[in-house]
Amino acid sequence: MRILLSNDDGVHSPGLMALFEGLQGLGELAVVAPDRDHSGASNSLTLSRPLTVEKHPSGFWSVDGTPTDCVHLAVNGLFDKPFDRVVSGINTHANLGDDIIYSGTVAAATEGRHLGLPAIAVSLVNNGHFHYETAARVVRLLLEHKRYLALGPRSILNVNVPDLPWSELAGIQVTRLGHRDRAEGVVPVTCPRGKRRYWIGAAGGGGDAGPGTDFHAVQNGFVSVTPVHIDMTRHEAMTRLQDWVDDLEGFGEVSQ
Amino acid sequence: MRILLSNDDGVHSPGLMALFEGLQGLGELAVVAPDRDHSGASNSLTLSRPLTVEKHPSGFWSVDGTPTDCVHLAVNGLFDKPFDRVVSGINTHANLGDDIIYSGTVAAATEGRHLGLPAIAVSLVNNGHFHYETAARVVRLLLEHKRYLALGPRSILNVNVPDLPWSELAGIQVTRLGHRDRAEGVVPVTCPRGKRRYWIGAAGGGGDAGPGTDFHAVQNGFVSVTPVHIDMTRHEAMTRLQDWVDDLEGFGEVSQ
Amino acid sequence: MRILLSNDDGVHSPGLMALFEGLQGLGELAVVAPDRDHSGASNSLTLSRPLTVEKHPSGFWSVDGTPTDCVHLAVNGLFDKPFDRVVSGINTHANLGDDIIYSGTVAAATEGRHLGLPAIAVSLVNNGHFHYETAARVVRLLLEHKRYLALGPRSILNVNVPDLPWSELAGIQVTRLGHRDRAEGVVPVTCPRGKRRYWIGAAGGGGDAGPGTDFHAVQNGFVSVTPVHIDMTRHEAMTRLQDWVDDLEGFGEVSQ
Amino acid sequence: MRILLSNDDGVHSPGLMALFEGLQGLGELAVVAPDRDHSGASNSLTLSRPLTVEKHPSGFWSVDGTPTDCVHLAVNGLFDKPFDRVVSGINTHANLGDDIIYSGTVAAATEGRHLGLPAIAVSLVNNGHFHYETAARVVRLLLEHKRYLALGPRSILNVNVPDLPWSELAGIQVTRLGHRDRAEGVVPVTCPRGKRRYWIGAAGGGGDAGPGTDFHAVQNGFVSVTPVHIDMTRHEAMTRLQDWVDDLEGFGEVSQ
Repeated sequence: MRILLSNDDGVHSPGLMALFEGLQGLGELAVVAPDRDHSGASNSLTLSRPLTVEKHPSGFWSVDGTPTDCVHLAVNGLFDKPFDRVVSGINTHANLGDDIIYSGTVAAATEGRHLGLPAIAVSLVNNGHFHYETAARVVRLLLEHKRYLALGPRSILNVNVPDLPWSELAGIQVTRLGHRDRAEGVVPVTCPRGKRRYWIGAAGGGGDAGPGTDFHAVQNGFVSVTPVHIDMTRHEAMTRLQDWVDDLEGFGEVSQ
Repeated sequence: MRILLSNDDGVHSPGLMALFEGLQGLGELAVVAPDRDHSGASNSLTLSRPLTVEKHPSGFWSVDGTPTDCVHLAVNGLFDKPFDRVVSGINTHANLGDDIIYSGTVAAATEGRHLGLPAIAVSLVNNGHFHYETAARVVRLLLEHKRYLALGPRSILNVNVPDLPWSELAGIQVTRLGHRDRAEGVVPVTCPRGKRRYWIGAAGGGGDAGPGTDFHAVQNGFVSVTPVHIDMTRHEAMTRLQDWVDDLEGFGEVSQ
Repeated sequence: MRILLSNDDGVHSPGLMALFEGLQGLGELAVVAPDRDHSGASNSLTLSRPLTVEKHPSGFWSVDGTPTDCVHLAVNGLFDKPFDRVVSGINTHANLGDDIIYSGTVAAATEGRHLGLPAIAVSLVNNGHFHYETAARVVRLLLEHKRYLALGPRSILNVNVPDLPWSELAGIQVTRLGHRDRAEGVVPVTCPRGKRRYWIGAAGGGGDAGPGTDFHAVQNGFVSVTPVHIDMTRHEAMTRLQDWVDDLEGFGEVSQ
Repeated sequence: MRILLSNDDGVHSPGLMALFEGLQGLGELAVVAPDRDHSGASNSLTLSRPLTVEKHPSGFWSVDGTPTDCVHLAVNGLFDKPFDRVVSGINTHANLGDDIIYSGTVAAATEGRHLGLPAIAVSLVNNGHFHYETAARVVRLLLEHKRYLALGPRSILNVNVPDLPWSELAGIQVTRLGHRDRAEGVVPVTCPRGKRRYWIGAAGGGGDAGPGTDFHAVQNGFVSVTPVHIDMTRHEAMTRLQDWVDDLEGFGEVSQ
């Protein structure tokens, strides 16, 4: 098994190191990660310039681009041999609910969606203890599963691991993504040169965070494993939408 | 109705101008867009620095950030009065199928998901004629619909308009997102200073582009309207995943 | 005469517009400027990626790079016909003394140092009145001078114009660059996500700002014109340095 | 002696490591460098956002900004104790003649101009052998000099070291900056999405590279040491310029 490791915290981040160490012996590992922190990069893809790839003394590769760029290059021709799957992380912070829309960690995994095996995005629900080794061990467990995991096309696993020693984990729960409330308001500041500027406010609380959600699982000490897919079509709304469109005025007989 | 306009091509782009002009009289319009082209920015959110907002002589606002930053600021406190909905575009190129994962246009709309009315992302399926006015008229039509559109929470409309005069449009189709094949391979180049660098290759063709998809609609001259939601949980895979997790070895009795 | 206009505030800045309007009729004008604000960019040159050039409806060109990139491209092959000189500005703020080390406005002029006529960097000593038209008229006056200005190779003019109506200017003074005191200390802030970050502090006061300096001229209502050269060798220190190097121990007889 | 080390190739670059190792025991060393490659950044200073500082396990600090930002923060309040001097490098490539206008390595040294002792910028005239240890030893030699070096205010040393084993160095020469010819023309490319883009062309050859210049010294196996100052006033042109300004027409009696 050839496994591609990436992340969004950058090639020098301790979470990536811990992942690399924790998966030793599982197969052929290659690391291709951004040359610096790209948290919040989401699925940004760099189309306006070519990307520069460096090999580090550690054997890791870095790219002067986003997490998505890294995985895209790696699975589309940077290497001669193809990869079987992608693991992205260990992110320094949780990626729960709506967070995954913005997450570079999840985006890197997403970019491995055309490979045979579901990619895994893994994040630490950091509370200051930095138990990366626990998260790495969870990933190893998932990778060593004897049975093939059939999630369907273009699906990945989003894994969040409580920041606990392994022995204190409560178990593993399959969850759905919860949803956060609206974010806090923007935070205006005045810079030393007298100009008003604005910080994005803190993320909202878990408005939909009850039993069954990823929020709830990790809060109770469980590893949360969520199947995530890339098809964002809201299939169940299509009939209703068709109905509404049929009702449009002003388009003449062409609306059909 | 207070409508927020944004885009990912930047505050000076002709698609945004055309949208602004095409919606005159529909309500109170405010434009908040990136200070430059951010195509491919996806849902990137800028958390590591405060953002700078400028008001232009045109009355438009620009932000030195991503499309997501723009809408986030605008709906979370930059203005005193709240917005009713967000329209993002008119993007210079199509956003079909997997494109929307990377699209800043769709991301800007997504960021309006907490508002009452579904946000609209609109793109021109550009073939060199730049019929932005057609796309603007389609948006106007949708906004003037007398009936309330109930898509459910956190849903938006992704609209792609063929690059045709209005009178040549074949109609409007409600579609699902198709899917592209894997992208072309990376394109290596050697820069003038002798260094090897890599372009992201061209997007893949429409592997899943048959009747019912957005690809198929626009190819046949129809406006494509797709309901898109932000909840990426693959609900239908949860039982299968639970089964697989139950089968995990090595976690002891804690796996439940 | 073919004149290249550029700046560091970006292609849409009012200072650039005012310059373009103020020089109408003087020759063939071409505008190539950054696609957004690059204040403080100094002589940054972009070598790691190719640059993208856009022509705007106004006839101006923008580049997704630094001021230096803009002028470099324009005088090294972007256009068929060569330029005779470069004018950079009108910068929104003064560029006095040590400021020019950091100034993108001056850097853009510097990049025209291989052309036949000395480039001009022009800045407004802004006090909130935005008399760009005064600064433009000063540049026009300098360009219309009947005599050739022989400053020697690789030299430019750094011009700072008080923010006054033309009729209130006290005159023009040839000045040397003054020097600022050390900058104010860094300004720590805590961001909404709890992380400590640091603003560069305000620029220092004019420590060397007496008569004869650019600081002094503008403070007294004069246009300041400073000859600036690119040769940063401190020629007068070479003997002393040679002496010191001769005294080096540990290099054996090879030091000569 | 408290010495600040920085560079423009980034905190993880081998040249910086070699410098740090080569100066062990000379005093108290602190390393503050950009979080990634910033070659060509010149004196760019980041004023539009606060900077983020990270401490690495190695004890080095990184800043998400330019070389100038790094030294500016370090000498203006990031640390409690002041520094005595700055050493910037070892740059991966030569910084000769006009290169220093664009050089982040030289810019970092420049930012230490308000300290008591002249800052040193050091670069390797790389020919593929990477004899960083030679360059580090040259810096050590300069720092261990018993005599105080009086270069005058706002002056630094620009040092270029041939890529040779120590024993093969021909000696040390005090030089002036040579000058390059105009750069090669821009290099147009067409990207995979069909858009024309432009690379900055290769640097020009040494047009003024005869005996006495830095170009000539390193080509003959000598370490080149050039005194560089920040005062860019072309003092010797001031009389001629005054003359020319006196001749200006159209300013009425106010020109004086």
